[in-house]
Amino acid sequence: LRMSLAEKIVKGDIKAASRLIRDIDDGVESAIDVLKELYVMTGRAHIVGITGPPGVGKSTLLDKIIEVFRKEMKTVGVIVVDPTSPFSGGAILGDRIRMQRHSTDEGVFIHSLATRGHVGGIARSTHDIIKVMDAMGKDIILVETVGVGQDEVDIGNAVDTSIVVLVPGLGDDIQAIKAGILEIGDIFVINKCDHGGADKLEQELRMMLEMGAKRGDNWQPPIYQTEASMGKGIEKLVAGIQRHRNLQQQKGLYQRRERERARLAFWEILKSSVMTKLQQQLSLNGELDRIEEALTTREKDPYTLVEEIMQKIMPR
Amino acid sequence: LRMSLAEKIVKGDIKAASRLIRDIDDGVESAIDVLKELYVMTGRAHIVGITGPPGVGKSTLLDKIIEVFRKEMKTVGVIVVDPTSPFSGGAILGDRIRMQRHSTDEGVFIHSLATRGHVGGIARSTHDIIKVMDAMGKDIILVETVGVGQDEVDIGNAVDTSIVVLVPGLGDDIQAIKAGILEIGDIFVINKCDHGGADKLEQELRMMLEMGAKRGDNWQPPIYQTEASMGKGIEKLVAGIQRHRNLQQQKGLYQRRERERARLAFWEILKSSVMTKLQQQLSLNGELDRIEEALTTREKDPYTLVEEIMQKIMPR
Repeated sequence: LRMSLAEKIVKGDIKAASRLIRDIDDGVESAIDVLKELYVMTGRAHIVGITGPPGVGKSTLLDKIIEVFRKEMKTVGVIVVDPTSPFSGGAILGDRIRMQRHSTDEGVFIHSLATRGHVGGIARSTHDIIKVMDAMGKDIILVETVGVGQDEVDIGNAVDTSIVVLVPGLGDDIQAIKAGILEIGDIFVINKCDHGGADKLEQELRMMLEMGAKRGDNWQPPIYQTEASMGKGIEKLVAGIQRHRNLQQQKGLYQRRERERARLAFWEILKSSVMTKLQQQLSLNGELDRIEEALTTREKDPYTLVEEIMQKIMPR
Repeated sequence: LRMSLAEKIVKGDIKAASRLIRDIDDGVESAIDVLKELYVMTGRAHIVGITGPPGVGKSTLLDKIIEVFRKEMKTVGVIVVDPTSPFSGGAILGDRIRMQRHSTDEGVFIHSLATRGHVGGIARSTHDIIKVMDAMGKDIILVETVGVGQDEVDIGNAVDTSIVVLVPGLGDDIQAIKAGILEIGDIFVINKCDHGGADKLEQELRMMLEMGAKRGDNWQPPIYQTEASMGKGIEKLVAGIQRHRNLQQQKGLYQRRERERARLAFWEILKSSVMTKLQQQLSLNGELDRIEEALTTREKDPYTLVEEIMQKIMPR
């Protein structure tokens, strides 16, 4: 009796999961059927987001967090962002390579998400891959995001525990980002705390958090100082992650996040499906070419063109 | 005789332009009519993107670039990203404040783009605001983007000249990003060149650029070292920006970018219009609540739900 792809994935088969994820990225239709089968098996994993500007050492931190979770016999899924290079065909450097040591461990499944080449967009791919890892039975799913784009904010809302990583002394731009991500952080990490200024940054952060609006969940976001490259501070951080999970489960806050996550995933799938279909329809008979021509010559404006198309496809 | 809002904007009226942009962000319907009127007046500005990770000093660089363009009597529009803070209601810090000195100059129009609160999404807002500034008659429009998200890549494709800013010594993560943005850069800037390692970074960059695929436009992306806070290297950089523009105009490459920009703007407008309409339709009769409920209880999966909705709204 041969197992279906979905069955293999539920049993934790990494090769089967990788194949499905590749099919998702390539827009293979049958992948959707497998995702449908898997959906009922999801909702158990603890989904942890890690965000922060480039250069703060997220990869090294991830590497060490995986290590601590594995010591506690938890299985781990990891989604990291891998900016695709046209020259190297995918940049895998220093920290990335170190993290790959876990890939020989059956209990760890690492997926590198390219920033392009996703038929349905990167946000949709992330949601889909989280579901795959969840269905595989991973206890913890770590999702790395970069930057402060709308995609990141949305994915931030889709995790159970959101970790924001900063380092001392990156200047004004960091301040601006800090302000923007304060509200999404459940846990703050000051990495490279051996560099000067870690205590000052912690003090500033604490002040900003205290000045902010009271959270509805009675959780005081803790701030951890780490030196990831030396493994310093990681066990305390992991304990903090688990404390946040416990609070959510006690207070039923987990269900609220799960609902939010379901809503966001639904909209991403709907958006990518609608836009893919529209692209197909408009590509027929060279209509898209005519549209581009009319826009470039300014014979028509895009707002009027969109209204005309909307009238055709969604007349109500 | 009173002038219409569109007429005022074409005359360069900053107050009128600000009002329109506010209306765009708030999703005011009549704003679209003004955008339609303005479209025929667009297509003349030189649109310059500035991207790079946080902490490289993009704001200071922008400030100095504006200064040099103003000395040459060019009018300038600037779109900067302003991560909105729930605590401060918009973070305006150090470098940002310095740049604001230009806002008393009639020839400069600066708009701070919040990362949230755009009814149609940040990418669509950016396209719309570029059109407004273009219609105002700005010679140069500088657009700052942050991070490496899909939105950024798309906006990068919509500019005439794309500047990538780096600094020496930000570690592995920077390397990964560098690989990802190499292909979108028409011009590279190594800022804070007074810090050690600028020459080494320039050498590395040059090597990577030479190893890469030949560009179709015969343009060799130049690398400029700057120390923006001291104004060092800025005039050469601005000369490079203008050289890129001249080449594009000579070879008719400008039209290709214009067409690409029109295509991207069209898709963003279509996407946000379709999704807004869908959101309205699904919110009726509590259908959206029922969908979320079915997803959370795993009674249904999102893929099946999306198929059902697609069948209803786009049956063909």
